[in-house]
Amino acid sequence: MQPFSQFDAQGGLRHLITLEGLDGDLLRQLLDRAQHYAARSGEIRIHGKELQGFTVANLFSEPSTRTRSSFELSALRLGADVINLDLMLSSRVKGESMLDTIYTLQAMQVDVFVIRDAQAGVTQYVAEHVDGHVSVVSGGEAHLTHPTQGLLDALTIHQYKGGFRDLVVAIVGDICHSRVARSSWRALTTLGVGELRLVGPEELMPAPEEFPGAGRFDSLEEGIDHADVVMMLRIQNERMEQARVPDADRYFERYGLTAERLKRARPEAIVMHPGPINRGVEMSSEIADGPQSVIRRQVANGVAVRTAVLSHLAEARRKRS
Amino acid sequence: MQPFSQFDAQGGLRHLITLEGLDGDLLRQLLDRAQHYAARSGEIRIHGKELQGFTVANLFSEPSTRTRSSFELSALRLGADVINLDLMLSSRVKGESMLDTIYTLQAMQVDVFVIRDAQAGVTQYVAEHVDGHVSVVSGGEAHLTHPTQGLLDALTIHQYKGGFRDLVVAIVGDICHSRVARSSWRALTTLGVGELRLVGPEELMPAPEEFPGAGRFDSLEEGIDHADVVMMLRIQNERMEQARVPDADRYFERYGLTAERLKRARPEAIVMHPGPINRGVEMSSEIADGPQSVIRRQVANGVAVRTAVLSHLAEARRKRS
Amino acid sequence: MQPFSQFDAQGGLRHLITLEGLDGDLLRQLLDRAQHYAARSGEIRIHGKELQGFTVANLFSEPSTRTRSSFELSALRLGADVINLDLMLSSRVKGESMLDTIYTLQAMQVDVFVIRDAQAGVTQYVAEHVDGHVSVVSGGEAHLTHPTQGLLDALTIHQYKGGFRDLVVAIVGDICHSRVARSSWRALTTLGVGELRLVGPEELMPAPEEFPGAGRFDSLEEGIDHADVVMMLRIQNERMEQARVPDADRYFERYGLTAERLKRARPEAIVMHPGPINRGVEMSSEIADGPQSVIRRQVANGVAVRTAVLSHLAEARRKRS
Repeated sequence: MQPFSQFDAQGGLRHLITLEGLDGDLLRQLLDRAQHYAARSGEIRIHGKELQGFTVANLFSEPSTRTRSSFELSALRLGADVINLDLMLSSRVKGESMLDTIYTLQAMQVDVFVIRDAQAGVTQYVAEHVDGHVSVVSGGEAHLTHPTQGLLDALTIHQYKGGFRDLVVAIVGDICHSRVARSSWRALTTLGVGELRLVGPEELMPAPEEFPGAGRFDSLEEGIDHADVVMMLRIQNERMEQARVPDADRYFERYGLTAERLKRARPEAIVMHPGPINRGVEMSSEIADGPQSVIRRQVANGVAVRTAVLSHLAEARRKRS
Repeated sequence: MQPFSQFDAQGGLRHLITLEGLDGDLLRQLLDRAQHYAARSGEIRIHGKELQGFTVANLFSEPSTRTRSSFELSALRLGADVINLDLMLSSRVKGESMLDTIYTLQAMQVDVFVIRDAQAGVTQYVAEHVDGHVSVVSGGEAHLTHPTQGLLDALTIHQYKGGFRDLVVAIVGDICHSRVARSSWRALTTLGVGELRLVGPEELMPAPEEFPGAGRFDSLEEGIDHADVVMMLRIQNERMEQARVPDADRYFERYGLTAERLKRARPEAIVMHPGPINRGVEMSSEIADGPQSVIRRQVANGVAVRTAVLSHLAEARRKRS
Repeated sequence: MQPFSQFDAQGGLRHLITLEGLDGDLLRQLLDRAQHYAARSGEIRIHGKELQGFTVANLFSEPSTRTRSSFELSALRLGADVINLDLMLSSRVKGESMLDTIYTLQAMQVDVFVIRDAQAGVTQYVAEHVDGHVSVVSGGEAHLTHPTQGLLDALTIHQYKGGFRDLVVAIVGDICHSRVARSSWRALTTLGVGELRLVGPEELMPAPEEFPGAGRFDSLEEGIDHADVVMMLRIQNERMEQARVPDADRYFERYGLTAERLKRARPEAIVMHPGPINRGVEMSSEIADGPQSVIRRQVANGVAVRTAVLSHLAEARRKRS
């Protein structure tokens, strides 16, 4: 078997499982396309036809209103037929049985699988086994990768900052378990971000060999000092224990973003969060709803980026068929 | 903050949370539009484009096959993209967290929210916070309001009776807990109904200051005497206890509509019910399926009315954008 | 009441509850139409308009990713609006209450009901009560009938074997409880199959008067001897007990299809299974994924057949309206 590639023989993108291996040119192409789809709020959309005749199957094993609805709307607005299936692929007894589910849907002429699974490797495993015309897109995989999140974060930063080169970006919180952190780091590094910092309790820092080039900070104040972008991550309660933080209040005391603390960042710094926010844990409501928050723009960009990815895959497919 | 209004600056209807504040002209406009959409049974429809490019999100926290499917079909047949989310907005921990959900969907370019929530005030609260181009429509709220039900009841009565002025309408059952009763009363009163009567056990009558102008009857026979329209309400088992009616059989004995009792109404009286019917409790099957029953027509009119409301809101939006 | 007929007054097919009563000409017409819709894998489809303006309601009371998705995609690709309702019609308290649900959806202008119910007779009962323009299609009913499965099996056999007359077809497993076996037997018999054999433990054989004309075999080896088609059925664990087979391993020992055993069939024999497969129970993975397996083609044909049925019903309806 050949090593797995996300690209087809013509060099077009066929799957989006990870941002690893996508160069800056391709990322910029995807961001440009997403910018094209980024509707101004309140605008009445023209219904697209880029995916007319295509069928998109959303296979989400974890509840995710946000990401699933975002993919669903992207696909519908490009004219695709969409089916939603709540199923945990990795819980199927054996690999073969999981593939039987995939092959069944493939035989029904599903063209694009969007998959979120809690188990690492499932998405790529599916991509390795589908027919040549079928694409697989990750909707978030274990703690490892969430490529469309990385793209939407990059798009949002680009919209507000006009580029990446001179920026200081701080990612704050539970880096260790965060696919968001990994994918955003990957996107920003490929796009040549000036400086990237990881900020959080030592216990929640990733292994030393991960995130090469990123600085590491235990102190929120130091970590966001003069930052242009402060990207807050969602923290799960069970992770606090691991970080020996007794409770959410204590977490907020140490790592919660407040107006006072945000003063350490650049005055025009933007605040991001992948959502859903735990208000009073990761940040105060004052910050979440404040003028520096770009959280809702991230959501809007999530749709734009997913639309761009689906339309890019469809275009590549037309070229090779 | 300005007092909440369902109308936009041009005077167009933007939200439909309650029928309160809608005058007779607007109600008649909506009914005319609904009449236009009221397909004859068996007709093959032309697929509309009034909502092409619009996204409708159905947020239903209570199970409701009937109302949710009705809104979903209305939206689809007007060309909208539709997503269905089973979520109890009011159960979200804080108001802010509920709004985060709404803002997330709004950022995904949802144009119309259709909301059913068991907690009073939620729908208006959402409407007060969404962006100017977004509309909120109630799919039924607590015991208070169900505006599209009021409209469909009015449309049905108009179709059979040609008007409202000379009619005697009796609403029978658990008035106190019924959003249907409140919305139908509102619609019919605004449209100038001749006489409106509330019929039911005293314990299930609304507060004295509610339903001004309506007569009140403890006896079914007297309440429907010479009525043109007999509108039966659904009764929950737990309400019977409150009314000190020991069981469904006993309720039927006192308030169940039978062929015998219906003779007290006008010979050409119509019988209505918002569904789903408890046969043998609110009425006998003989009545439910009999020639005077217009219950299925109510369901058909439900789709017509929701289609009219969605198309009206879309038109108003186009005017202001 | 007239005896129930699946045909309308013009002789067009109106419902598809069972293949009983459909003659060879009609089956061949449906298979031809399905062949027309059978997309080549990887082809980009043209979106059809045969069902534009139609609404299809999927009422599935048993979980069925495969059949429900298959009907949903067929309907969407023909341009229909589709609503999915998870509901167990037969669990509704009384027949009347079940009909209330149906009448409600009918009043919402549902044109086609696709129904899967575990209780025998429900689908026909609904078909007997809907209005003249409405069609009812079975998505599988109790152990009795699964007409689109019978059609897709016939289509698959025809694609590989070019006809039916000279073929030996062996159906293997739990015949007694299988709607697949009954519907495939019906289709193949009507289409004039050469020889049809039932193979399985005596305890899982159907009543003697069922499957007239079919041979019966207790031994897998003898049953598939020189067969052109080996159709394996899914076996439920609880059925093994009934057949006094202690466990799945022991079932596989006696009735599992292996490469060794398949040598008894004709060299070019095809292996079928309605899915989902229990690998290592009904057949080895070697067989399921081997060159003689046509299981994925069956799934693809499932969509083609359902598309053909829906488009046929829509055409018949247009003729009578």
